[in-house]
Amino acid sequence: MQPDASAGAPLTPAIVFENLQAYQRTFALKAAIELDVFRAVGQGPGDVASIARHAKASERGIRILCDFLVIAGLLRKENGHYRHTPSSATFLDPSSPACMASITRFLALPELREPYEHLADIVRNGRTVLPGEGSVEPENPIWVEFAQSMGPMMAPLAGPLGLVVLQGRTGPMRVLDIAAGHGLFGIEIAKQNRQAHVTGLDWAPVLRVALENARKAGVEDRYDMLPGSAFDVEFGEPYETILLTNFLHHFDFETCVMLLKKVHGSLKPEGCAATLEFVPNEDRVSPPLPAAFSMTMLASTVAGDAYTFKELAEMHRQAGFKPATAHPIPMSPHTVVLARA
Amino acid sequence: MQPDASAGAPLTPAIVFENLQAYQRTFALKAAIELDVFRAVGQGPGDVASIARHAKASERGIRILCDFLVIAGLLRKENGHYRHTPSSATFLDPSSPACMASITRFLALPELREPYEHLADIVRNGRTVLPGEGSVEPENPIWVEFAQSMGPMMAPLAGPLGLVVLQGRTGPMRVLDIAAGHGLFGIEIAKQNRQAHVTGLDWAPVLRVALENARKAGVEDRYDMLPGSAFDVEFGEPYETILLTNFLHHFDFETCVMLLKKVHGSLKPEGCAATLEFVPNEDRVSPPLPAAFSMTMLASTVAGDAYTFKELAEMHRQAGFKPATAHPIPMSPHTVVLARA
Repeated sequence: MQPDASAGAPLTPAIVFENLQAYQRTFALKAAIELDVFRAVGQGPGDVASIARHAKASERGIRILCDFLVIAGLLRKENGHYRHTPSSATFLDPSSPACMASITRFLALPELREPYEHLADIVRNGRTVLPGEGSVEPENPIWVEFAQSMGPMMAPLAGPLGLVVLQGRTGPMRVLDIAAGHGLFGIEIAKQNRQAHVTGLDWAPVLRVALENARKAGVEDRYDMLPGSAFDVEFGEPYETILLTNFLHHFDFETCVMLLKKVHGSLKPEGCAATLEFVPNEDRVSPPLPAAFSMTMLASTVAGDAYTFKELAEMHRQAGFKPATAHPIPMSPHTVVLARA
Repeated sequence: MQPDASAGAPLTPAIVFENLQAYQRTFALKAAIELDVFRAVGQGPGDVASIARHAKASERGIRILCDFLVIAGLLRKENGHYRHTPSSATFLDPSSPACMASITRFLALPELREPYEHLADIVRNGRTVLPGEGSVEPENPIWVEFAQSMGPMMAPLAGPLGLVVLQGRTGPMRVLDIAAGHGLFGIEIAKQNRQAHVTGLDWAPVLRVALENARKAGVEDRYDMLPGSAFDVEFGEPYETILLTNFLHHFDFETCVMLLKKVHGSLKPEGCAATLEFVPNEDRVSPPLPAAFSMTMLASTVAGDAYTFKELAEMHRQAGFKPATAHPIPMSPHTVVLARA
């Protein structure tokens, strides 16, 4: 996102025009991923003709699309040839192990974009125009897509989260992964601690994705499934650790406290709740990515938010936890909030 | 638009995430304009409650929307209060004479955004998915909206364009304004030269907007209308000056040459054609705004483009003009290209 560069510089309406046209960038990146442009740039000579052949597309279309990607900072152009930037090579070329191009399938879902057509109404009413509970309506199929496509964005967070949560702790432990989704966070705990037993909780069709990931990671013998809603199902016998990743932001403060009380009641003494969240600073406008996430919650939920650490700490306090601590994950917009029962 | 900041800095997927979510910025700015947020910020204390009252909106919605506008560089936040940036005060507050908030009505037209849902197909085929000639299909009603709402973006260009075109020339002259739209460019010539007589050419419903603007400017007695298509109607007796503003970019090179030949044939000896265009550098990726305009032409036309000066000069040469000259308009993405018959 861009700061206003007008201080001292000549005053132009460029920032207004750019923001009004910003939607083009979403669609340009989505189209480039669909057309496999980033693989073509990585493996070919990078001229318009070769990229167009690879993408089975017109040269006019490819030239204009690739120029646009350069302007958006997603490619470079050198003597008329398109080249990867460090970011596009790492995160957008399917031949990179860190490629996260699949996240476009979730982030550009029409169901998630459609509410923005009514954003003024949403701001008036203070809640999504989606029916029922919005994106967290029971059995909403978008969470299957989330589990299937957002893994590459979450995978780099799993290692650091595991280190923070385990803090070197070994030996047998039971872990509950609430709203497990792709399951990668619980699976990582099982990988870091060979005696950990993980229970993934989510809608049944979502858990099938998590189980498949557990199988790929070779930990399926220590992976159980608990299908249903975190608010309704019994968590079962107490756990050493309960993970709440990318979940609290969907709900209002009181609902979060209620859920955290249930979590607190399902932890062994000194057991630990680990929440992964977009946590903006107290000013709520920095850093840009966690702070901007509030908009996604405004558009898609009834009362969710990107909560500040102060708010998250207070939720935990009201739910009976000892004082919470914040552990920002380096080079990511996410923070782990830890609290002991 | 943002350069890749990753050189030297830690490599994060932030730029990928930001581009995929960029559409939110279009809708946030549109909603803020609809809710009159920028007027509220300019005239009130700038706290959430007062803006929400003015906008007749929820405090949750206003807080999240305004924080998002701060992140996008469209407002500032100071001790919890929202303040104008120099840009938002000038270009987004309706109490500013330079306010251009109305351009959102044209730029966010569903008809213009819809093709992006099919951008991969558009790139494959190299042309818009809109029917017929796309945005320049005869009598397309979007041009009435363009004429009505884009004036504030074009008005600051009119004075500089008039100076470049007239170059101090006084005395009687006939001016043809092709694709007149809002009519502001021809009207400005009539204002700068009290003996100029202007003929606006455009679809009849569009010309009604131009005529109303001529009336407001007090030059309607020197303003004639020539309704129809620039390709079909007879231009009539020869002109001293013919304006071609924001028009050539809709067509392919050969069509532009054909039209410029017709223009050449309708000019008096030493008469002058003045083209106003988004003109990118020869690299086609700078400056960002004129270069990015190619994407708009890819999405909405059959074969239009943001042409480089070299291309525009060659079109004029092939149409019989003397060598063209480029006159960039300061602090705008536009350039005037002048050529004499």
